[in-house]
Amino acid sequence: MDEAFESQVRRTGQKLFQLMGDEAPPLFHKDSWAGKVLAQCAKDERFKTDFLRFMNVLPSLKQVHSMAEHLIDYFGRPEQRIPQELKLRFTRMSLASLKRAESISGEIREMMKKFIAGAATAEALPVLSAIRDRGMAFSVDLLGEAVVSEAEADAHGRRYLDLMDDLGRVQEDWKSLGDSGGELDWGFAAKVNFSIKPSSVCSQMSARAFDQSISTAKERLRPLLRKAMTLGAHICFDMEHYDLKNLTLALYRSLMEEPEFRGYPHSGTVLQAYLRESETDLRGLVSWAKKRRHRVTIRLVKGAYWEAEAVHAAQRNWPVPFFADKRDTDANFEKLARLLLESREWVQLACASHNVRSIAWVMETAKDFKVPPDKIEYQVLYGMAEPLEKALVKARVPVRVYAPLGEATPGMAYFVRRLLEMTSRESFLWHRFGEGVPKAGQLKNPGAKRRPKLLASDTPKDLERPFQNEPQRDWSIEKTRARFGDALRKAREKFPLSVPVVVNGEAITTVREILTRNPNEGSEVVGVVFGAGIEEAESAILSAADAFPKWRDTDPARRAGILLKTAVAARKMRDELAALQVYEVGKTWDEADADVCEGIDFLEYYAREALRLAVPQRLGKLPGEVSVLSYEPRGVASVIAPWNFPFAISVGMLSAALVTGNTVVYKPSSNSCVTGTMIHSLFARAGVPPEVFHFLPGSGSEIGDFLVTHPRIALIAFTGSAKVGLRIIALAGGSLEGSNQVKRVVAEMGGKNAILVDEDADLDEVVVHVLKSAFGYQGQKCSACSRLIVHESVYDRVAERLKSAAESLVIGPAEAPGSSMGAVIDEAAKERILSYIEIGKQEGTLVMERSVPGQRGYAVPLTLIGDIRPEHRLAQEEIFGPVLALMRVRNFREALEVANNSSYALAGAVFSRSPRNLALAREEFRVGNLYLNRGCTGAVVGRHPFGGFKMSGGGSKAGGPDYLLEFMVPRNVAENTLRRGFAPKE
Amino acid sequence: MDEAFESQVRRTGQKLFQLMGDEAPPLFHKDSWAGKVLAQCAKDERFKTDFLRFMNVLPSLKQVHSMAEHLIDYFGRPEQRIPQELKLRFTRMSLASLKRAESISGEIREMMKKFIAGAATAEALPVLSAIRDRGMAFSVDLLGEAVVSEAEADAHGRRYLDLMDDLGRVQEDWKSLGDSGGELDWGFAAKVNFSIKPSSVCSQMSARAFDQSISTAKERLRPLLRKAMTLGAHICFDMEHYDLKNLTLALYRSLMEEPEFRGYPHSGTVLQAYLRESETDLRGLVSWAKKRRHRVTIRLVKGAYWEAEAVHAAQRNWPVPFFADKRDTDANFEKLARLLLESREWVQLACASHNVRSIAWVMETAKDFKVPPDKIEYQVLYGMAEPLEKALVKARVPVRVYAPLGEATPGMAYFVRRLLEMTSRESFLWHRFGEGVPKAGQLKNPGAKRRPKLLASDTPKDLERPFQNEPQRDWSIEKTRARFGDALRKAREKFPLSVPVVVNGEAITTVREILTRNPNEGSEVVGVVFGAGIEEAESAILSAADAFPKWRDTDPARRAGILLKTAVAARKMRDELAALQVYEVGKTWDEADADVCEGIDFLEYYAREALRLAVPQRLGKLPGEVSVLSYEPRGVASVIAPWNFPFAISVGMLSAALVTGNTVVYKPSSNSCVTGTMIHSLFARAGVPPEVFHFLPGSGSEIGDFLVTHPRIALIAFTGSAKVGLRIIALAGGSLEGSNQVKRVVAEMGGKNAILVDEDADLDEVVVHVLKSAFGYQGQKCSACSRLIVHESVYDRVAERLKSAAESLVIGPAEAPGSSMGAVIDEAAKERILSYIEIGKQEGTLVMERSVPGQRGYAVPLTLIGDIRPEHRLAQEEIFGPVLALMRVRNFREALEVANNSSYALAGAVFSRSPRNLALAREEFRVGNLYLNRGCTGAVVGRHPFGGFKMSGGGSKAGGPDYLLEFMVPRNVAENTLRRGFAPKE
Repeated sequence: MDEAFESQVRRTGQKLFQLMGDEAPPLFHKDSWAGKVLAQCAKDERFKTDFLRFMNVLPSLKQVHSMAEHLIDYFGRPEQRIPQELKLRFTRMSLASLKRAESISGEIREMMKKFIAGAATAEALPVLSAIRDRGMAFSVDLLGEAVVSEAEADAHGRRYLDLMDDLGRVQEDWKSLGDSGGELDWGFAAKVNFSIKPSSVCSQMSARAFDQSISTAKERLRPLLRKAMTLGAHICFDMEHYDLKNLTLALYRSLMEEPEFRGYPHSGTVLQAYLRESETDLRGLVSWAKKRRHRVTIRLVKGAYWEAEAVHAAQRNWPVPFFADKRDTDANFEKLARLLLESREWVQLACASHNVRSIAWVMETAKDFKVPPDKIEYQVLYGMAEPLEKALVKARVPVRVYAPLGEATPGMAYFVRRLLEMTSRESFLWHRFGEGVPKAGQLKNPGAKRRPKLLASDTPKDLERPFQNEPQRDWSIEKTRARFGDALRKAREKFPLSVPVVVNGEAITTVREILTRNPNEGSEVVGVVFGAGIEEAESAILSAADAFPKWRDTDPARRAGILLKTAVAARKMRDELAALQVYEVGKTWDEADADVCEGIDFLEYYAREALRLAVPQRLGKLPGEVSVLSYEPRGVASVIAPWNFPFAISVGMLSAALVTGNTVVYKPSSNSCVTGTMIHSLFARAGVPPEVFHFLPGSGSEIGDFLVTHPRIALIAFTGSAKVGLRIIALAGGSLEGSNQVKRVVAEMGGKNAILVDEDADLDEVVVHVLKSAFGYQGQKCSACSRLIVHESVYDRVAERLKSAAESLVIGPAEAPGSSMGAVIDEAAKERILSYIEIGKQEGTLVMERSVPGQRGYAVPLTLIGDIRPEHRLAQEEIFGPVLALMRVRNFREALEVANNSSYALAGAVFSRSPRNLALAREEFRVGNLYLNRGCTGAVVGRHPFGGFKMSGGGSKAGGPDYLLEFMVPRNVAENTLRRGFAPKE
Repeated sequence: MDEAFESQVRRTGQKLFQLMGDEAPPLFHKDSWAGKVLAQCAKDERFKTDFLRFMNVLPSLKQVHSMAEHLIDYFGRPEQRIPQELKLRFTRMSLASLKRAESISGEIREMMKKFIAGAATAEALPVLSAIRDRGMAFSVDLLGEAVVSEAEADAHGRRYLDLMDDLGRVQEDWKSLGDSGGELDWGFAAKVNFSIKPSSVCSQMSARAFDQSISTAKERLRPLLRKAMTLGAHICFDMEHYDLKNLTLALYRSLMEEPEFRGYPHSGTVLQAYLRESETDLRGLVSWAKKRRHRVTIRLVKGAYWEAEAVHAAQRNWPVPFFADKRDTDANFEKLARLLLESREWVQLACASHNVRSIAWVMETAKDFKVPPDKIEYQVLYGMAEPLEKALVKARVPVRVYAPLGEATPGMAYFVRRLLEMTSRESFLWHRFGEGVPKAGQLKNPGAKRRPKLLASDTPKDLERPFQNEPQRDWSIEKTRARFGDALRKAREKFPLSVPVVVNGEAITTVREILTRNPNEGSEVVGVVFGAGIEEAESAILSAADAFPKWRDTDPARRAGILLKTAVAARKMRDELAALQVYEVGKTWDEADADVCEGIDFLEYYAREALRLAVPQRLGKLPGEVSVLSYEPRGVASVIAPWNFPFAISVGMLSAALVTGNTVVYKPSSNSCVTGTMIHSLFARAGVPPEVFHFLPGSGSEIGDFLVTHPRIALIAFTGSAKVGLRIIALAGGSLEGSNQVKRVVAEMGGKNAILVDEDADLDEVVVHVLKSAFGYQGQKCSACSRLIVHESVYDRVAERLKSAAESLVIGPAEAPGSSMGAVIDEAAKERILSYIEIGKQEGTLVMERSVPGQRGYAVPLTLIGDIRPEHRLAQEEIFGPVLALMRVRNFREALEVANNSSYALAGAVFSRSPRNLALAREEFRVGNLYLNRGCTGAVVGRHPFGGFKMSGGGSKAGGPDYLLEFMVPRNVAENTLRRGFAPKE
């Protein structure tokens, strides 16, 4: 680093500090209501959580009574340290307490308002004019981050058009800023400037459906751009979450390449310096601009989605896309600013940071490049940094205020980001105005040398490494999408595949031919299956019984090692395995990929679990005795698997049985035998001996009972319908005469899963999660949501938004990347589901029945039935298809009662922001897997052990710490070590 | 302490050290084979264990090949540090290696011989004469510590008589020792002196059968005493384990009070200074001697059973009877010696210690009391302390050498004690000759002040204290025996007791009257039971179902607290509960007491387990999610219990069901309804609400199926026969239509348990353990030994000793304290067992069929059937009575095969001293509970989780860490904590 330059930066920084004076932004005023609360947030994580949560739910609380209840729930814990400002001196409702609740809520609303220029355009116009009066420009953003349907997207787009009209009208009265004269501010900038998040005007943005998303978004954005052009206004394509970044950049370029917009000088987008990829993205953008000779304005920001992106990446086991150290972000900001200044011919830098060091650095670097001070914008956020605004104006540089408009609910995520920035221990604002750290320290070079941080390494998985979930595909990466497309093409070329029985490693083609078909294309045969009969089953069972002792006595580490090898092989074939599912069982890209990942998770998880359980537990520590508890396998296991998670569930049951030392006869569903045979060969190639694992594809009516009642069968692991499961339990219990052992049945059966929506629920979240839970894989999951139990006060709104969102879902063949829903598994399923839809229409009110004309295969309409009551069949019977019953309840207690009124108890979810109702749900919503504020599908191995009780199962939990115990019997060996009066010491 | 006296002690001690010179006893010679091995033992606990174990098994190894194999197994581990002397340079058998094995074994035998004066009298006479030639007297002991039958006891007594004859003949040639002249040594001691352990001439010594043991032992000892009197010889009643101490002291006094022995001056016994009670015992003995004017010689020792007593006490959770600190023992030794010297008119002190400080102290104290130096004996052990012997002779004080005679096997425990003494880090000998610590230090006053050790306190049990097993009764305490006798009398006075059904706390007397009878007295009615019918059962189940939600939601700590209260109440009623069992199901004292203790253990253990499982497990630690796994109860449990552990098994199943939050309907066996009703009222009084726990006594044929198939039953906990168990499993699996849940069956069923006897087994142990396992409670335990699988090389010896030992067992009514076996439960059981005896006689060879004439009730003969083969019914079918099948096998592998050839897999045991065979058994003896070198009954809660597989059960383990999971279903609750981009930190 050039020390002379650095000292110049420090001087400029100090000058800015001087211009700022001692003033702090209003929200940092320590004697104000907001200032005190924010100070406490910065000090106390727990309080910050409670405060943000309360702020979050507040806009949905319509009644004072409800506000008071929530205040008590959030801030009424005796051990809690809360500032006087939020203290409630009541524990029960009184008039005084209600008044106090109203006043607290009012304060919070006031605080939120400080971040927005107004709720509606009418309110905003004077605010925007006032900004200009103070010598600054603005960029206006209509808040709206959770647009769940095309109708909502449309409406949002219309609001922008209206705003444009309004501003177009008034801009003429505004004189331009700066000394350049003319119609442009400072000689280069449009007076009216809009920031638009593409996802706010387009509800179906999805990285997986990349091209489709771009073309839809373009349709939405064209009218806005056209209108902007007529006004000569600037449009900035705002950046949001990382997974939409590539899409946004591509969208911007694609749109600006269209002839009507080519060369329009007032457009741009945003780069986030905290992303490791931002430099690459910038270089790409610059070369595009040069090549296209299209001038683009780049708002350079640090990045505000840090917290959410960190959770997102960790939960998916994806690499973290941003710099972990704030100083790296600050250094990268400077690096990107320099690149922008280097290419100033085609890119216009807008420096958007509240950090005085960053600003001073940009000012000095601009000097180096001989850029006049009034040719670079400095952008600040409305309400966040008034002293800085004033200082910059005094420094006579262009200043633009980013001014959001909108209501509390759509703006909530924005408010949260602002509050986090203001109270973060790493933020410039907090350092300056909250803590008042020395100014000199704030001007230090962020790029100065320091010890490098180690990144998480990419070492191969092995048994010593703790279990980690297999990361699903990140469809925002182009290569990933392309590879999957290839896999689909290649898969299809091989159809139909031949699936023989395999006993003792020998492939047997029988006369019992069964065809498996592509559900989205009923005529396409995926597999030709040679179904096993009694003869093959008998021979497989006897061979497995013979092989049992040796496999049982094999070192558990060897068996676990085979699982890991299977995982490695499956990982290599991920796309191939997932592509097969797309055709064989009709899973969409996401669903197919997730299923394969889950199967790999089972392999990795059970391998480790088996080793944990292979270590004998010492019992007691008395002298003279060594007593240990250990486990051994049961014998021959029948694994009878379903088609709906054709890889994951089969692999889960198989790996649990095998790794614990059982030998196995495996019957996949007749609908997914091709996946079944691939699973069998994966295990076989990884080293499971042929006599240990036999493959019996075919029909349940042919060999199902035989695989249960055979006297040499010790264990039946079954996942499927309650009807078949109960039959298996009865057969297993009734066939013990002449058997070698009491048969253990591990049965995972159906569900009638409910999602509860409380009156204070975050409806944006509800709609997204319910759609996925109810219609993901066409509702063909045992955990699928099939009852939506909604508080009457929000029922209509939920039904309406859900309908509108469901109408926006892309329905189509599973192999199309954009499809979110395809056809159901087979003709019988289709008939069953259609008949339930008819029942539903009679029992309740049809809210929606959405068919897609021309859809092929076993398509059924996506259906919403309202006004279902607990006694209806639609509230009690498992449908296993894309049919959702909406039920109206008067309060949360009733919601729980309705939810529990089922013979099943598998999965369920609750959307509520009332701590007391969430606590109630934890206690009283009796299902095996309960989710709070998320959907009820998508259990993750290790994190969400999966399985239910009542008629849903016996209480075993796949992917949990007790699961492998089901596959084993315990043994205790106690040695008396006392011999002739001598006991060894330990 | 008197410093002048102390310095006099030190001077005398130094003088003795001078007289000892620098010589060490031969076994401590560092260049000798034994010296090196012992030095290693002292250094290395692990090696000491291996060496003692090999020494232990050596006498039973008849072939060189087998010696070599055992040497490899014990000393062939690569990581082992072993002295050169034991190193094997072979891993496979060669001529050279066999020769080396022989030579090592020879060295060990030589070493053992150093401790004994000879194997037989003929060898011993010259040795004893030589002792006298060196100016010392002797006391001769015929080694024999494991006398398991009256025949063996008889033979041992005869050997003493023969020895007496031999020594009587030669003593006339011996001139007396000392200067007193006359026929007595030193003017007071008989020339011939015998030490006799009473248990070596009486096989049925038992503290429980106190009076009976004394009268039998007296019969055995009278001829010996008479013969001794004719020779004028001394007889010392040797002390052994603590549990025989009171018996030995009482026996000595009782015998010497008989007219023919009264006043005979040459008798005595032993006091062990390491026992806390020894002072009390000494004072009692002194006052008895004074009163009776009977002179008694007391050999004062430190005590040599430290290791064994420590194990014994710890395993029983009894207070440790001895001083934990060796210095306290040394100080107590001095205190007792002073008491003895104070009362020297009636007690003659024999100071038996190798500790120079102790000896010097006694010499100086004797001086204080003006006792001439030649009037106190100093005793040493043969082969242990030659330098000390010589020094004492030189010091001209009476010296007596304790000289054991006998073979290696009966002497083994003696050898072990000597080796432990020689290598103990606390022993004077090891300090002196092994380590050579400074002599001055060895003369220090052991009573000098030091920080007091804290004793384990007797605080009441509570949930914070870790689980401890309830200590069984110590019958050597007179008050304990008396109290139990009282309890028996009081119990009987109340018969017959009335047992009503109890539903909702309301007692109901029905018309279905059933009588329960004392099995040992068929006509005695213990209880009049009003059996429940369908009507009562239905009402109980429905009430339990209604009560379920509230009980489920009760704080687990409250439920656990109720278990602890039940335990407290049961503890208070222990004798009453056990006495009832003696009459209701015919348990002997020990067995009845053990059953109640086990029940209390279940209460204490499950209370703690329930709290452990009540803490939700956190899964995963990803940001943005809190996922926890917890458990909740299943619903209404049917507990269907057996009569054979009428308290323990019922209480175990009930407490598991209740503490986890299930409500219960309880049907005890119709044979043990009185115990059942007491259990019900214990729980009820401790606070289990009446609607939570219903009592349904009665017949299985009446309500059994109903309790299984009722749709509201969620769980059936059953212990009993395989026939009934399998019926329950089939009924439960077949009755799920219309049910609320998949029913869980926890079934513990039968066993056909085998004990394996290897060719190198310690047969003394085998006989004792097999008797207890096969005939304890008349073989009516699911874990009872019913097959004894014996290596052909020891088969005949085992059969013969077992027969002889079984003939010595006391058979009689359960209420008689001496009885080890009584009658079986009822007439049907008697008929079944008798028919199996007939089958056995046809299938095999009758070894013994022992009936006791005049025995009343449902008595069946104790039966041993030899030559049973695997295919015989006696090898396959559960008899549930005192019938043991002996099976002959050629080797250990065959033994395992025969053992595993059973449809049951419950309990089993192995007696072997071959590490490789023990390892093989661990791997391949497939039973739920395997015991090595102990019997197969008597599983202890927490230490031996109990339960089997195959047809013995489903793999649940009562009293183990997984048991409560059977009574619960798991629930996972996962909360998405990410709201609007903010996830709380943790």
